Amino acid sequence: MTEDEIEVVYRVRAASSGIDARIEALLLEQTVELQRAALRTAYVREHFVGRVIAADPVGADEFRVRLAQPADTVAGDPAQLLNVLFGNCSLQPEVELEDVRIPPALVRTLGGPRFGTAGLRRLTGVRGRAITASVLKPIGLSVGETAALCRALALAGLDVIKDDHGLADHSYCPFTDRVRVCLAATAEAAKATGRRTLYVPNLIGSPATVLRQAREAKELGAEAVMVSPMLLGLAFFNELVQDLGRPVLAHPAFGGAQRIAPVALLGKLFPLYGADAVIYPNAGGRFSYSRDVCSGIARALRAPDAAIAPAMPAPAGGIKIENVASVLGSFGADTMLLVGGSLLESPDPDTLLRRSRQFVEAVHAFPYPP
Amino acid sequence: MTEDEIEVVYRVRAASSGIDARIEALLLEQTVELQRAALRTAYVREHFVGRVIAADPVGADEFRVRLAQPADTVAGDPAQLLNVLFGNCSLQPEVELEDVRIPPALVRTLGGPRFGTAGLRRLTGVRGRAITASVLKPIGLSVGETAALCRALALAGLDVIKDDHGLADHSYCPFTDRVRVCLAATAEAAKATGRRTLYVPNLIGSPATVLRQAREAKELGAEAVMVSPMLLGLAFFNELVQDLGRPVLAHPAFGGAQRIAPVALLGKLFPLYGADAVIYPNAGGRFSYSRDVCSGIARALRAPDAAIAPAMPAPAGGIKIENVASVLGSFGADTMLLVGGSLLESPDPDTLLRRSRQFVEAVHAFPYPP
Repeated sequence: MTEDEIEVVYRVRAASSGIDARIEALLLEQTVELQRAALRTAYVREHFVGRVIAADPVGADEFRVRLAQPADTVAGDPAQLLNVLFGNCSLQPEVELEDVRIPPALVRTLGGPRFGTAGLRRLTGVRGRAITASVLKPIGLSVGETAALCRALALAGLDVIKDDHGLADHSYCPFTDRVRVCLAATAEAAKATGRRTLYVPNLIGSPATVLRQAREAKELGAEAVMVSPMLLGLAFFNELVQDLGRPVLAHPAFGGAQRIAPVALLGKLFPLYGADAVIYPNAGGRFSYSRDVCSGIARALRAPDAAIAPAMPAPAGGIKIENVASVLGSFGADTMLLVGGSLLESPDPDTLLRRSRQFVEAVHAFPYPP
Repeated sequence: MTEDEIEVVYRVRAASSGIDARIEALLLEQTVELQRAALRTAYVREHFVGRVIAADPVGADEFRVRLAQPADTVAGDPAQLLNVLFGNCSLQPEVELEDVRIPPALVRTLGGPRFGTAGLRRLTGVRGRAITASVLKPIGLSVGETAALCRALALAGLDVIKDDHGLADHSYCPFTDRVRVCLAATAEAAKATGRRTLYVPNLIGSPATVLRQAREAKELGAEAVMVSPMLLGLAFFNELVQDLGRPVLAHPAFGGAQRIAPVALLGKLFPLYGADAVIYPNAGGRFSYSRDVCSGIARALRAPDAAIAPAMPAPAGGIKIENVASVLGSFGADTMLLVGGSLLESPDPDTLLRRSRQFVEAVHAFPYPP
C-alpha cells in the first residue's frame, strides 16, 4: 500500500472458477466503470485503475478481496469516497464492504473525531470508569414531561442524558424549548447533586435545519450534540463537524440499509467522518450484532488504524441494569454505557429514580482494571 | 388508513409462534421505542403508537406486515421520515422495508419531482419515443478529453449526456471547467445537427459543495443536473430540489438496497424526495435486479401512488445497443434509455460515433405502441 492508495476489503460470493473475472469487474466498477480494453488514454490506465492486493478464499465460493484504489479518484470529497468504496457495488448483493484503510492525506481532510474519548472525558469530568448515559423518550412527551424526565435522570447522577434519535422539531415539543428546559433541568440537578450531567440534544433534518439547530443548541449552552449520520448523509455529517466545535454522538439509525460490515461502518467510517462517540446495538439486546462484532466496533473506535483521535464506544439497545457488570466486563472503562428502556420501563417515577441510581452505582462501583 | 397515518409494509422473518410479539416490538421500535407498558402518558399512548393493519404469511416463517404509524411522529422532517420508516429496524436483519404510503400533507411537504417526465420531455423536445442518454466516463479524462467525448456523443444525436456519477471536482478535470466545455460542446454539436442535446453535470460532495456546484451549473447554463441521493443523504437531496429549479436525475450509487426493496427506495422514496428521473440497474446487466423488480420500479415512477408528478425511469447498467429493442419492448416510450459502456467500449473514435448513431437510430425507429 502506498500513501496514494485506498485499501478496500470486500467479501465477494463467487464461484472459484470465475473469481478472477469477478474481481477485475469489481476493481474497475468502483472507479473507471469501463472494461480495461475500453480505456483510451494511458494516463487513465496508469493513474485511475487500482490493483488487486490479495484474494483469499474464506469459505465455499466466498472470497476476501483486498483492492488498492488510487486516492486521486476521490478528489478529497467525502461523498466521492463513499462512491469509490461502495457506490455501484452496493447494488450487487454478492459484494459486502468489509474494511477500509484510508491514506493519511485523505484522513486529514476528513479529520476524524474532533474531541473523541479524551474530549468527552474532559467534558463530563469522568475518569477511570465508564460514562453513564440514558435517553429522553418516548417521542410524544410534552416540553414539561421531557424536562421532568431529564431532571429525574440527572438527579440520579447520570453523566449523559441524550435525546431519543426520533426527537425532531415536533410542534408539541419544539426543539428550542426542549433544549432550553433540558439544559435548565440538568443545571438545576447539578446544584442539588454537586455533579454535572451533560444533556445532548438530537439534531435532525435537512442540512439547513440541522445547521440552524446546531447554532441554537450552542447559543442555549449545549456542550455536545447527537446526530444520526446515515439519516443526515455522511457527507453532510462531515461538513457539520468542521465548524461545530462540540463533541458529537453518532446514532446508527438507518445504518443497516447497506451491506457494509458494522465494524467498517460504525467502527471506522463514522469516526473518520467525525464522530466522537458512536452508539451501536450491543450484543444480546434487540438487535443482532454478535459479541465479536461489538468488540470489533469498540476496538476500532479506541485504537483507530488511521491517524485520528480515539472515539468512545457507546453500546446501547436493550442493556439491562442487571447486566451492567457483564457489559463493563466486556468493554471496560473507556465506554459510554447507554441504558434507556431498562430505566424507563416502569411508569412509576420512584422506580425510575431508584433504577437510574442503581445503574449509576453499578457503573461507579465496577472494579475496573487499573 | 387515515390521512394522519403513514402506511409502512415490512417483510419480517419470524416463527409463526412469535409473530405477534415480533410485530408489537417492530411497531413500537420505530416511534416510541419503549414497551407499551412503559408509556406513562395517555397522550403518547393515544397519539404516537401506531397500529397493525395486517400481517399475512408469505412463506415459511416469513410475513408481510402492514403498519400504520402516526404522521405526527415525523414532524414534516425528511430525515425523521426515514427514521420512522427504517431507522432502528434497518439494524435488524430479519426486517426488510418493502413498501410505503405517505399521507397527502407529508407528500406536499416533500414535494416529489418538480419537473418529472413532462418536464424532461419539454426540455429535450422528445415526444413519442424513448429518450437516449449516455455517459461521460471514465474518471481520469482531462477537460479536453471529456469535451471531445461529449461532442462525439452529441454529434451522434443523443438526447441526454450525463457525467459519470464518479466525476467530482478533480484537479485534473475541475467541475467548473468540465461543465463549461461540455455545455459548449453540446451547443456546438446542436448547430451541426440541428438537434439539441441536454448535458447533465453530476453534483457531488457535502451540502456546501453541492450547493455551490448547483449555483455554478445554473450560471453556466446547465438545464438539468444529476445527483446520487444516497451519497448526498436523502434529507439534503430534498432540500436541494426545493430551490434548484432544474430537473434532477437520481443515480442509485450507495443505494445498496438489499433490505429496502428496490421498488420502495428507487421507485417511491427517490421521486417522493424530488427526483425527476431515476437511474436504476436494468435486469440482465451487471447488477442483479430481476425483470419484475425493474418493471415494478418503472411502474411506481410513472404512476405514483402519491399525489406527485410522474418521474421518468432511466434503466441503465450493461444495456447493449443490440438489446435496445428488447428493453424498449419492456419499458416503452416513457423511458430514458441510458447506455454507456456499450458505446464507449471500443477505444476507436469512429466506432464510438458509429455505435452511438446506431443506438440513436434504434431508439428513434422502435415501433412504439400509439
